[in-house]
Amino acid sequence: MSQFEQVSVIKKANIYFDGKVTSRTIVFADGTKKTLGIMLPGEYEFGTDTKEIMEIQAGELSVLLPGTTEWLQINGTGEFTVPANAKFKLEVKTATDYICSYIAE
Amino acid sequence: MSQFEQVSVIKKANIYFDGKVTSRTIVFADGTKKTLGIMLPGEYEFGTDTKEIMEIQAGELSVLLPGTTEWLQINGTGEFTVPANAKFKLEVKTATDYICSYIAE
Repeated sequence: MSQFEQVSVIKKANIYFDGKVTSRTIVFADGTKKTLGIMLPGEYEFGTDTKEIMEIQAGELSVLLPGTTEWLQINGTGEFTVPANAKFKLEVKTATDYICSYIAE
Repeated sequence: MSQFEQVSVIKKANIYFDGKVTSRTIVFADGTKKTLGIMLPGEYEFGTDTKEIMEIQAGELSVLLPGTTEWLQINGTGEFTVPANAKFKLEVKTATDYICSYIAE
């Protein structure tokens, strides 16, 4: 499926790191949310509130998941999951297009 | 209205200028489209196919509309219209959050 249907889109962007990371929030009929975002090259640390599933649609980046010491490499497409209330690090090498799903537990 | 409701969102981002300009396409029930985008600081020239209405939700930028010699300044919010099949220039000074509406004539 190349698009999400019958969703609401929040007009205002989410802007982080001077705009090097930005996203748009979409809300589904059941109240769940996703963000569709872009990360430009740089090093970032993020924290989660809920569990997050990050789907990389395009890009080249490395991910250090919480509790691990090995960087996960993604070139092109990929996916990783971050538990709730955790921190993870990213080294983004090319403009990266992602979808983040927030999973209530 | 702070959100667009009952729309489809194309998953893949539109990425221009190495990611310094990116947007997401949303499609309304009547088939019309808008893009919700971010422009990072830089100088850009864009061309239109249809008439476009650009709503600036946040940002600081200057706009040179086709056929004009005076730069329009926008600080914060603003709006400008570009005719179909025209070129316009932007000097973006801060990360800028915009909504572009494509108007068939």
